[in-house]
Amino acid sequence: MKIIIGVMGPGETARPEDNELAYELGTAIARQGWVVLTGGRKFGVMEAAMKGADDNKGLTIGILPGATGEEVSRHAQIRIYTDMGSARNNINVLTSHVLVVIGMAAGTLSEVALAIKANQKIILMNQSEETAQYIKKLGSYRVITSDTVEDTIHVIRDYITVHSIA
Amino acid sequence: MKIIIGVMGPGETARPEDNELAYELGTAIARQGWVVLTGGRKFGVMEAAMKGADDNKGLTIGILPGATGEEVSRHAQIRIYTDMGSARNNINVLTSHVLVVIGMAAGTLSEVALAIKANQKIILMNQSEETAQYIKKLGSYRVITSDTVEDTIHVIRDYITVHSIA
Amino acid sequence: MKIIIGVMGPGETARPEDNELAYELGTAIARQGWVVLTGGRKFGVMEAAMKGADDNKGLTIGILPGATGEEVSRHAQIRIYTDMGSARNNINVLTSHVLVVIGMAAGTLSEVALAIKANQKIILMNQSEETAQYIKKLGSYRVITSDTVEDTIHVIRDYITVHSIA
Amino acid sequence: MKIIIGVMGPGETARPEDNELAYELGTAIARQGWVVLTGGRKFGVMEAAMKGADDNKGLTIGILPGATGEEVSRHAQIRIYTDMGSARNNINVLTSHVLVVIGMAAGTLSEVALAIKANQKIILMNQSEETAQYIKKLGSYRVITSDTVEDTIHVIRDYITVHSIA
Repeated sequence: MKIIIGVMGPGETARPEDNELAYELGTAIARQGWVVLTGGRKFGVMEAAMKGADDNKGLTIGILPGATGEEVSRHAQIRIYTDMGSARNNINVLTSHVLVVIGMAAGTLSEVALAIKANQKIILMNQSEETAQYIKKLGSYRVITSDTVEDTIHVIRDYITVHSIA
Repeated sequence: MKIIIGVMGPGETARPEDNELAYELGTAIARQGWVVLTGGRKFGVMEAAMKGADDNKGLTIGILPGATGEEVSRHAQIRIYTDMGSARNNINVLTSHVLVVIGMAAGTLSEVALAIKANQKIILMNQSEETAQYIKKLGSYRVITSDTVEDTIHVIRDYITVHSIA
Repeated sequence: MKIIIGVMGPGETARPEDNELAYELGTAIARQGWVVLTGGRKFGVMEAAMKGADDNKGLTIGILPGATGEEVSRHAQIRIYTDMGSARNNINVLTSHVLVVIGMAAGTLSEVALAIKANQKIILMNQSEETAQYIKKLGSYRVITSDTVEDTIHVIRDYITVHSIA
Repeated sequence: MKIIIGVMGPGETARPEDNELAYELGTAIARQGWVVLTGGRKFGVMEAAMKGADDNKGLTIGILPGATGEEVSRHAQIRIYTDMGSARNNINVLTSHVLVVIGMAAGTLSEVALAIKANQKIILMNQSEETAQYIKKLGSYRVITSDTVEDTIHVIRDYITVHSIA
């Protein structure tokens, strides 16, 4: 069984610093031998995280909202076509062993909320103080913040060890 | 075509004041001749809003997460069995002409986020200052707050008139 | 709780005799006080069954594949927007108390197969000998054929009585 | 991008000859460097095809109906948790570049029908004369039958070459 790390964040509206961090994180996940999962589109955090993994011999999965190749990232090696629009966000959440959230947008927030509902582990990066506080209050013990890719990788490694994943 | 008003909010964790308001709102929606749509379960805001409408000769729709009658509200007159868990939240959002959100929980927040993503109109009731501010910032012009059922009905009526719904 | 009868069949490729029968069946379902459920599009069996009900003061539900009003039948009074394409066929199947299938096409066959899988009651009308035999073999006791609307209504009434639906 | 071959067929009700063929096919797909996709459960054709690939250093994807590890095949290396029951069949169909169908059951037939609807290539193996004829008539040019794993691999290779997949 493969360890799957979901990397969630804005698409077209991602900030440069979100994309840079997502690329760095994708790289680090690939180096651990884990799989990067995203929403699969060729924009923002999705694109950058998959490119980071793809450039470093990692495996990538894109859970796509549509039924066709339009707007799909070329770094999505495994393309899961759901044709269910934003309802696919719940598949992203349930399939990831741990979720890392970089930056924020409406779709991203829906994933965070669905992940809390599904009792998943969530690591927040590049968030405003306000967002971090709001989500930590709602998600309680499931949510932590991390400032560096190194810390994020440590948290994931501890989590999958403690929960005997893989 | 029927006008469908989604009433979203916590299930088992709803506060008494959320349930009271949901009942009052369900009553008012029914009296307008509109349909109440909820997540269909027999708890909290869903149950109360549908009971309010059902007690007042209104029509109610429950968009259910499961495939069977378990935990379904007896006030859900039309029972849409999705068997898709929380992914059904996106159907709630897309099917409602306007969404009213009473109280907050993880599932509810996912609906708010999906509604912003889908460009739907959202009316917030019984929210903390912090929640209202956070969601209004994310959702911009799509989100307003309302303090009374009367105001909520006015906002809905204006919205469906301006957008030529029905 | 409303009794919901699913009427399934081809859209654009329906034959005139399928549409005529669907209209007649929609009329008869409405006169029983039951609700007609279809895939909601403005073509073929879906359109005709809902028009039959709508013309006779019956209630109609369209479970739509898309997220917008495009190609929606004007006889779909309650419009459930799923935005999940053909995956919405499973919702049609699970939500209907009994399914009536008029004519055949690929999407229709998927609904028949999903209904057998979900252990639902299926009444076949206007089918070739070959289709009727093939589906009855696969679906066993769940599948029957009917030659007239009158017989179909009798079968439905017996089924919902025996199973204490409503 | 990875080439994904869907292998569909009965679970608990699969015949020994279906499982044997599925194992052999999973082996052959893996040796081509392609990925095996199934419904992910630990029964029948799904289990056997994934075991064949897994035993031969191939990659396997299970598109699961549930949200938890229950009844998941241990040969499903990548586990996509949909929590959408049989509606996930449409994801199987859309995600596979080519579908191979071994044996028949209600769920399998729904996948064949959805694949015809989605205009996908379908290769039938181990089918009765009656089933093969019925599906070929409905699916026309999209459907062919194959008697050997070798022929099936040839057909897939030609198809992905002609359609410039990968």
